[in-house]
Amino acid sequence: MAKTKTNGAVEKKLIGIADTVITAAQRSQDPTLNIPVRSLANVNFNEKRGIIEMGRRKQARTFFNVGMAKKFMQTVLVADALAELQRANLTTSLREIYYRTKHTIQNSHENTFDGQNESDPLIEDLEVTLEALREELHVRAENSGTVVGPLVLTDDGDRVDCTRLGKGGYSVPSIVEPEYIQISKCTADFVLLVEKGTQWNRLSEDKFWRRYNCILLTGNGQPPRGVRRLCRRIHDEFKKPVYVLVDNDPWGYYIYSVVKQGSINLAFESERMAIPDAKFIGLSSFDPEKHKLPRNVGIRLEDRDISRAKEILAYPWFQKKEWQKEIKNMLASGLKFELDALANKNFQYLTTNYLPRKLKDKDWLD
Amino acid sequence: MAKTKTNGAVEKKLIGIADTVITAAQRSQDPTLNIPVRSLANVNFNEKRGIIEMGRRKQARTFFNVGMAKKFMQTVLVADALAELQRANLTTSLREIYYRTKHTIQNSHENTFDGQNESDPLIEDLEVTLEALREELHVRAENSGTVVGPLVLTDDGDRVDCTRLGKGGYSVPSIVEPEYIQISKCTADFVLLVEKGTQWNRLSEDKFWRRYNCILLTGNGQPPRGVRRLCRRIHDEFKKPVYVLVDNDPWGYYIYSVVKQGSINLAFESERMAIPDAKFIGLSSFDPEKHKLPRNVGIRLEDRDISRAKEILAYPWFQKKEWQKEIKNMLASGLKFELDALANKNFQYLTTNYLPRKLKDKDWLD
Repeated sequence: MAKTKTNGAVEKKLIGIADTVITAAQRSQDPTLNIPVRSLANVNFNEKRGIIEMGRRKQARTFFNVGMAKKFMQTVLVADALAELQRANLTTSLREIYYRTKHTIQNSHENTFDGQNESDPLIEDLEVTLEALREELHVRAENSGTVVGPLVLTDDGDRVDCTRLGKGGYSVPSIVEPEYIQISKCTADFVLLVEKGTQWNRLSEDKFWRRYNCILLTGNGQPPRGVRRLCRRIHDEFKKPVYVLVDNDPWGYYIYSVVKQGSINLAFESERMAIPDAKFIGLSSFDPEKHKLPRNVGIRLEDRDISRAKEILAYPWFQKKEWQKEIKNMLASGLKFELDALANKNFQYLTTNYLPRKLKDKDWLD
Repeated sequence: MAKTKTNGAVEKKLIGIADTVITAAQRSQDPTLNIPVRSLANVNFNEKRGIIEMGRRKQARTFFNVGMAKKFMQTVLVADALAELQRANLTTSLREIYYRTKHTIQNSHENTFDGQNESDPLIEDLEVTLEALREELHVRAENSGTVVGPLVLTDDGDRVDCTRLGKGGYSVPSIVEPEYIQISKCTADFVLLVEKGTQWNRLSEDKFWRRYNCILLTGNGQPPRGVRRLCRRIHDEFKKPVYVLVDNDPWGYYIYSVVKQGSINLAFESERMAIPDAKFIGLSSFDPEKHKLPRNVGIRLEDRDISRAKEILAYPWFQKKEWQKEIKNMLASGLKFELDALANKNFQYLTTNYLPRKLKDKDWLD
């Protein structure tokens, strides 16, 4: 893991935080950081770009302010720990940043931090202030994903050919930035991003990727950041279309929309994470009928499903006619369906019937 | 995935269930299955073997019994679906077994199954009745784990060398039985089974496995079945010692004990899953002092931690003097510590100090 130029750039940005303090001190001024506001009020859907993005509002965090002094000090401590990571070229977790920066302030009983809930938001503050992805700050998430298919990666100098890893596959790390993982080759026709491990296992076991020349990628649930970034990079660097395979429920719609447009909470990441061209390959609320699934393998919508679906129906990024039809049809049926329910036909129905038909008919939503 | 002899054997056992019914019908008798009792009353700790195991009590499930007829029918349906998996040499999930076997009984409004909570226990019944691991019945769990280090596996004919997969590693499938995964080579000195992904990432990033010639294995939390089975197989087939790295809290003790002795709930699996020789390499309640961790990175024990610790203190498999000292010391300190807290020293403390010292001093619990 040789140091790269990128590393140096992020390190400089972090040192810039310290410079702000020093410069202000030398000029007898109040040290101030201008931090973009991470709230719903400062989030917009950019229809043209098809992503949820942050607005331009910033808030000053100053040191000579009783309400802000501690938070200012904490921000500088976190920036210092992040700079340490850059210098040593290490990655770590949000939790370890908390432990690393926690100590008792000299001659007091006051801790720098009392809980991780105090340090986490500061890392997000620094992400937006420095315009550096969390991964560029070398902070990893816990979760990882799995990939098989015609994709060759370089990881720590090892050439990892994802067609030669059996049905188990390569375990996608939570940081896949180019300084760590290089995508050497991708001869697939498309990427299939699979929500749940169970369908991914089915497809991997059946070597679906070989017959349909695709990459099978999963995060075992809501795709973690590493999986989304890898998907985005394959899409960007090799111009591969991305299809998202999720359950037919409001949660499935939401997962798809996060992959496609980004999320409201982490709007500042859309720029580097969202894939506005991603397609929804189902399960659609029209599929149970198309595939003659019995009603008793559907699951009755609960109140919270219904209210969530109505919320989604109102999102600006779900206003296309087909999407309105899709969601309203689910609401009208009163049922949601898991992809697992396709097993009611037979155990390989997903591989041998559902997906081939979707791909042949180009039956997806945009 | 060619069919193997093992496959045939499990298939025969499943067909045996149908034979029971047919034979009874031909003799005008009540079809009966004798199912080992899966309750606490039928579980013992075998001190000599060091595993939690099931007793010999069985219960008859008969068809001509109003209270059992439906369950009998359901058991046969599940056995039929499992036999289908064997014939087609497919694996599937608990959830898909439920969907596969669910239908409305002819000329009625009655479903064969109303929820997965009805089919799951029957799969466990069949496991114990047929003495076949869930994996041998081709039923997989959702979770998977990750491995790097000097280990060569064969998966679907692919030779997977876990020293050449960067820091990401091989994604351990949930079924690693010999019919699916062969362990071709293992030149490691030991296996380090790491509870949490964050420590595994630290060690993988630091190439700890290279310097200490070990296998790094994690299940990202409580080790899933596939990870435990892989660990057990490496231990059995290559005689490698296993060290378990967990947090210092009752949950960490419990995870260790499940790896070592098996669990009460799934006592029938200990035979094939437990590793009675496994060692606990910490975090021990004596480590915070040894490593001069400040008290403020400890987490105060909650009431449920205290009562759980007291339960564990009373388990027959925690009666060794050192273990009693270990647990009582945690209770006396009133604190639990996460491995993450080692980051308070520095981000690489686990790799460069904690583990090397443990291994040098043979400082583990048995």
